[in-house]
Amino acid sequence: MSAAPACLSQGRAAITPALRDAVDRLDHRSRHQVAYHFGWLTADGAPDSADAGKAVRPALALLSAEAVGAPSRIALPGAVAVELVHNFSLVHDDLMDGDEERRHRDTVWKLWGPSSAILTGDAMLALAQEVLLECGLATAAPAARLLARATRHLIRGQVQDLCFEQRPHVTVEECTDMAAGKTGALLSASAAIGAVLAGAPQAAVDALALYGAHVGVAFQLVDDVLGIWGDPAVTGKPVHSDLRSRKKSLPVSHALNRDGPRRDELAAWFAAPGEPDEPDEQELRRAAGLIEGAGGRDWALAEAARRTALAEAALRDADLDAGAREELLALGRFVVDREA
Amino acid sequence: MSAAPACLSQGRAAITPALRDAVDRLDHRSRHQVAYHFGWLTADGAPDSADAGKAVRPALALLSAEAVGAPSRIALPGAVAVELVHNFSLVHDDLMDGDEERRHRDTVWKLWGPSSAILTGDAMLALAQEVLLECGLATAAPAARLLARATRHLIRGQVQDLCFEQRPHVTVEECTDMAAGKTGALLSASAAIGAVLAGAPQAAVDALALYGAHVGVAFQLVDDVLGIWGDPAVTGKPVHSDLRSRKKSLPVSHALNRDGPRRDELAAWFAAPGEPDEPDEQELRRAAGLIEGAGGRDWALAEAARRTALAEAALRDADLDAGAREELLALGRFVVDREA
Repeated sequence: MSAAPACLSQGRAAITPALRDAVDRLDHRSRHQVAYHFGWLTADGAPDSADAGKAVRPALALLSAEAVGAPSRIALPGAVAVELVHNFSLVHDDLMDGDEERRHRDTVWKLWGPSSAILTGDAMLALAQEVLLECGLATAAPAARLLARATRHLIRGQVQDLCFEQRPHVTVEECTDMAAGKTGALLSASAAIGAVLAGAPQAAVDALALYGAHVGVAFQLVDDVLGIWGDPAVTGKPVHSDLRSRKKSLPVSHALNRDGPRRDELAAWFAAPGEPDEPDEQELRRAAGLIEGAGGRDWALAEAARRTALAEAALRDADLDAGAREELLALGRFVVDREA
Repeated sequence: MSAAPACLSQGRAAITPALRDAVDRLDHRSRHQVAYHFGWLTADGAPDSADAGKAVRPALALLSAEAVGAPSRIALPGAVAVELVHNFSLVHDDLMDGDEERRHRDTVWKLWGPSSAILTGDAMLALAQEVLLECGLATAAPAARLLARATRHLIRGQVQDLCFEQRPHVTVEECTDMAAGKTGALLSASAAIGAVLAGAPQAAVDALALYGAHVGVAFQLVDDVLGIWGDPAVTGKPVHSDLRSRKKSLPVSHALNRDGPRRDELAAWFAAPGEPDEPDEQELRRAAGLIEGAGGRDWALAEAARRTALAEAALRDADLDAGAREELLALGRFVVDREA
C-alpha cells in the first residue's frame, strides 16, 4: 500500500471546522448521530476521535479549485457538501445492507434503530445542499445542480445494486454502470465542484469530472475486491462481507459471465438464498475461491488500473495547474493501490 | 366540509406534466415506484389515476407568485420541488411508521420493501433540488436554499416525533415546535417559494412564509384530530391510526398536560407498549375517549382556528395582489375545515 497523499490529511483538516459548523445546525439528536458517525463523539456523547474515513471526496473538491488556478478555500462549501452526501449514502447503505459495523464501530442504525438512520441520512442530504447554497458565491447554483444530479446518479447506482441481488444474471456492463452511478457519480462531482465554484471554463470542469468518474469506477473495483478478499482488520468489515449478502459486485459479474467449468457451480451458489445470520465460513471461502479461479479478482484489479490510466489521460490533456494535477494523479493512484 | 378551492385542481393540473417530466429522469425502478406513489401507475405498471393527494403545497407555490404580481408559471419548478419533498417525506414516513396503506393503496415499502422505500424517497429529495436548480432563473439559488432549509426543519420535526413516542412526557410547546417543523416548515416554504422565484421584496416573502407556517401548524392540528377520530373511509388510514403507535400528537399532548381526574389513566395508557399487530379496538376507543374528555379534541380545533386567523392576518398586512390573497385565504380555510 502506498503512503496516503498529504492532500488527504490536509483536506480533512481544512474541512473539519466547516463540517462541524454545518452539523451544528441539525437538531440535537441528528447532530449527535452525525457527530458519532464522523467519529467526533462516542455513542454516549463523549468527545472521540475515531476514524472518519479517508475523506477522498473533500480532497478532490479542494484540489479541483487549485487545478483551475483558484485558492482551495473557494471549494470549501463544495468539499463539505460532497462529504455530507457521501456519508448520507453510507448511513442509509449500512441500514439497507444490515451492516452492523463501519470503521470498527457500531453503525448508526445498529445503535439507534432504522428510523433514526433514515432521518439522520435525510438530514445530511438536505444539509449538503443548504451549506453549498449558503456560500454566497454566484457559482453556488451550478455547483448545487452538479451535486443534485450526482446524488440522483448515486441513488440510481444503489437501486441497481439492490435489484442485481435479486436477479439471476447481471452483465459486466450493467455492473459497471452501477459502479459508475454508485461510486463514480459523486467522485466525479467531487473532482469538478471546486472548479465549478471557481467559475472555471467548461473544458476544465469536464476533464476533472471525467477524471473523477474513472477514479470512481477504479475505486469501486478495488472496494469490491476488498469486499470479498479484504482483511477485516484493515477494512473494518467482516471477512467476505459482500459474499454474505450474495452481492453481485464487479469481480462476481466477471466470473459469472465467463465460460468455464465451475461457472454453473458459482451461479448456483449465488442463486441460493443467503444466510446472513448464520454464514457458513467454509461456503464463503469456497465462493471466493471460485470467483478468483474464474479470474474475477485479476480482472477487477487490471480494470482498475486501466480506469486509472484513463483518469490520468483526462487530466494530462486538460489545461490545469501543474502542481494540483500532480496531486490529483497521486490521489487517484492511492485510491486504486489501497490495501488490495 | 367546505368545497375544495379551484386553485387545488388547477395547481394539480398545472404541475402534473412538469412533475412527470422530472420523475422520468429517475432510474427505471425508482420511476415506477414514484409514479405508483403519485397514483399514475398500478403496482404492476399499468396506467392508473388514483388519488395523488390534495397538492396543497404546489397550489401554495403557484399562488405565491401571483400574490407578488408574477405569473404563476414562474413558480412551476418550485411547485414541483415542494411536491417532491413532501412526497419524499411521506414515503420515508410510511416506512418508519409501519403504515401499510396510504390513500387506500399499499405503501411503497409494503409493496417493494424497506430498502426500495428508502432509495425512492432519497431519489425524490435529490430530484426536488435538481428540478429547482435547473429552471434557469437567477432566483433559483435562493429558492433552493429556502427549500433545503425547510427540508432540514421538516426532518427535525420528524426526529422530534420519533423521540416523543419514546418519552413519557412532552409539553404542548415541544409538540407545537415539532408540528412547526414537520408540517409548518414545508408549507411555509411552499407559500413563499413562488415569491422568491419571482424576485419579490423580502417583506412580501416573509409575510407569505409566516402565512404558510401558521397554516402548517393548523393543518397538523386538524391532521392529528383526524388521526385519532377521523373516518377511515375519508382519511384512507386505519381508525385510531395515531393511537395504535402511541403517537404523542397535539391533542394528546394537550390532554396529558391538563390536570384532571383521568389524566393518570391516560398517561399510563401512553406509557404502555403499543401492540401494532393486534390492536385492541376497545382500548383504542377508550384512549380516544379519554383524550376527548380532557378537551384534547376541542383544544386542537380551536387552536387550528386561532392559527388560521394568524395566517390570515399575516396576509392582510402585506402588500399583495388582492385576487391571489383571497385564493390563499380560501385555501387556508379549506385546509383547516377539511373533514374534522
